[in-house]
Amino acid sequence: MIEPVRIAIDAMGGDHGPEVILSGALRALERRQDIRFLFFGDEKRMRPMLDASPRLAAVSTLHHTDVAISMEDKPSQALRKGRRVSSMWLAIEAVKKGEADVALSAGNTGALMAMSKLCLHMMSHIDRPAIAAIWPTIRGKAIVLDVGATIGANAQHLFDLAIMGSAMARIVFDLPKPKVGLLNVGVEEIKGLEEVKAASRLLRQTPLASLEYFGFVEGDDIGKGTVDVVVTEGFTGNIALKTAEGTAKQIAQYLREEMGASLISKLGYLLARGAFARLKAKMTPPNGGVFLGLDGVVIKSHGGSDAVATAGAIEIGYAMVRHELLHKIRDALAVSHEDVLGPVADTAEKVFDAPLPSAPLEASNR
Amino acid sequence: MIEPVRIAIDAMGGDHGPEVILSGALRALERRQDIRFLFFGDEKRMRPMLDASPRLAAVSTLHHTDVAISMEDKPSQALRKGRRVSSMWLAIEAVKKGEADVALSAGNTGALMAMSKLCLHMMSHIDRPAIAAIWPTIRGKAIVLDVGATIGANAQHLFDLAIMGSAMARIVFDLPKPKVGLLNVGVEEIKGLEEVKAASRLLRQTPLASLEYFGFVEGDDIGKGTVDVVVTEGFTGNIALKTAEGTAKQIAQYLREEMGASLISKLGYLLARGAFARLKAKMTPPNGGVFLGLDGVVIKSHGGSDAVATAGAIEIGYAMVRHELLHKIRDALAVSHEDVLGPVADTAEKVFDAPLPSAPLEASNR
Repeated sequence: MIEPVRIAIDAMGGDHGPEVILSGALRALERRQDIRFLFFGDEKRMRPMLDASPRLAAVSTLHHTDVAISMEDKPSQALRKGRRVSSMWLAIEAVKKGEADVALSAGNTGALMAMSKLCLHMMSHIDRPAIAAIWPTIRGKAIVLDVGATIGANAQHLFDLAIMGSAMARIVFDLPKPKVGLLNVGVEEIKGLEEVKAASRLLRQTPLASLEYFGFVEGDDIGKGTVDVVVTEGFTGNIALKTAEGTAKQIAQYLREEMGASLISKLGYLLARGAFARLKAKMTPPNGGVFLGLDGVVIKSHGGSDAVATAGAIEIGYAMVRHELLHKIRDALAVSHEDVLGPVADTAEKVFDAPLPSAPLEASNR
Repeated sequence: MIEPVRIAIDAMGGDHGPEVILSGALRALERRQDIRFLFFGDEKRMRPMLDASPRLAAVSTLHHTDVAISMEDKPSQALRKGRRVSSMWLAIEAVKKGEADVALSAGNTGALMAMSKLCLHMMSHIDRPAIAAIWPTIRGKAIVLDVGATIGANAQHLFDLAIMGSAMARIVFDLPKPKVGLLNVGVEEIKGLEEVKAASRLLRQTPLASLEYFGFVEGDDIGKGTVDVVVTEGFTGNIALKTAEGTAKQIAQYLREEMGASLISKLGYLLARGAFARLKAKMTPPNGGVFLGLDGVVIKSHGGSDAVATAGAIEIGYAMVRHELLHKIRDALAVSHEDVLGPVADTAEKVFDAPLPSAPLEASNR
């Protein structure tokens, strides 16, 4: 029998309260029987939901706390008031303690990232975290990272983003060797940022079993689905993500206006409303940003998530654990960093293989 | 009588040849009688068009050259083969020599920018050029700059982009004091790039008659039309522009697929096709990127422009000259750079107003 996936949930995060989050958990449970939940938050508000659903109650534990992080709290404030005591912290800490496999919150992204870093620490080889988003494309879906955890990146960090993003893509898209592109500008007069060019050389030079490096991609390649993983640093990634969201909203608004502009077009809309619903579904990205680079799995659910979206984020967390995201990342990092450091390691080995001079040994006896 | 606007056109730029460009010029002429054209390119190909249109011929001069820059030429290659002899260079040089008021090309952007910088030089106070694009928004239109002329920007360059973009917005939108926003990330844990924050302080501290500084905006604010001018450096601006284009294409593709998926939705599409046509028109940005920061007006028309799009780019060039873009930028720069340097100037004045100590004077007699 396989072990269940234990999901620690900050039930106080998000705009709609614990009721919606627990409903989402129940939905996720209908799909996956091998889930256990640890809910952190206001017991008085969570208890009635569990009393009403013996099935959810059977796989859940409640952990009461009065302290919740608000959407307005800055990360520093959140840490001051919520460290060790808030529902958000306790959910993350459950992962740290080995009581849960993944933490999930629909709360304040900045606070969640700050607490995750402080509580879980970074993975070895990785200095800075990233947030990966799943993005709808014409061909299906792509993973874009970093969409806002860290501003700026050197070549090594971009390289590590490629490794981490492709590990996630192997799980989400069930691909053995996802295609990875580096986001760059294509206008001729500018050849791109130095660090992006250096990261490209690094990705070309390093033999990697876990990904196929495609080369540079431009902004419009994201939606085209040119690659499975789009790598960029957090400033540009965040602006690209929000710009795409804004453009989609803008077109939806135009469509509403134009479809309502005449009786004929209203009739046309009525006839084609199934098509519009499918369009909307296609353009809605899956809920659940994955924090990468941490020594533990943390999922950020959208603040406005309903039960369906919450279940979607839980499903992503489930998949990351079941398919061993951290293990895949660690393996790929170990191999790639070995490859990158190959010549150094070789030299070191030769030094150690050579007969030891006597002086250091004598010195060590002192 | 007002002076006509003299437009120098690289007739060999773009994907469709001089025939389409001259047709576009004829269209523009139908709207504006006070235009004169200087066409640079292959006379054999241009002559029949002029022979067929005495009206266009009456306001045009042809300047033959065999050398054309191709879309594949890198800027350095373009300069080697095209400096002083290509249709692109000659159009720009006509502005330099005072024979034309604006140069327009649908050719290679990188080559056009490199030649413009080399031939026209930068405006005083400005170190680096920018490309400004007009972007459709829910509320109308916005100007976004820089969309790819220069990678990276310090606070002063971002400040100057705000000044130049707002001068252009005053013309394009006929607004006395356009609202300007700095593109930044809104995720809580990251407060944005240092240079963006410094530019924000500079814009807040400097009293400017030519623009209203709004503050930071995020990627989705571009399409919302939160501000009239969105300022960012060229790497992020280019990626935001292409990402928005990609998202619009992606939605158009989904719409086509879904509308064709059933007989009922096909019927719906037929009934609402007027609405779809208007949607498409709304989402199509006006043709014509404006190069800013140069000591002359240069307009980049889209490579794939048809006659209508070419006429649109000519109209933008016309407006920039008629409403004195360069004059507006120079004025605003002079005032703002004075304001920025205000305290220094004040101190200098006080020093000069104060009774001069005798020692320096004596010293100066030596």
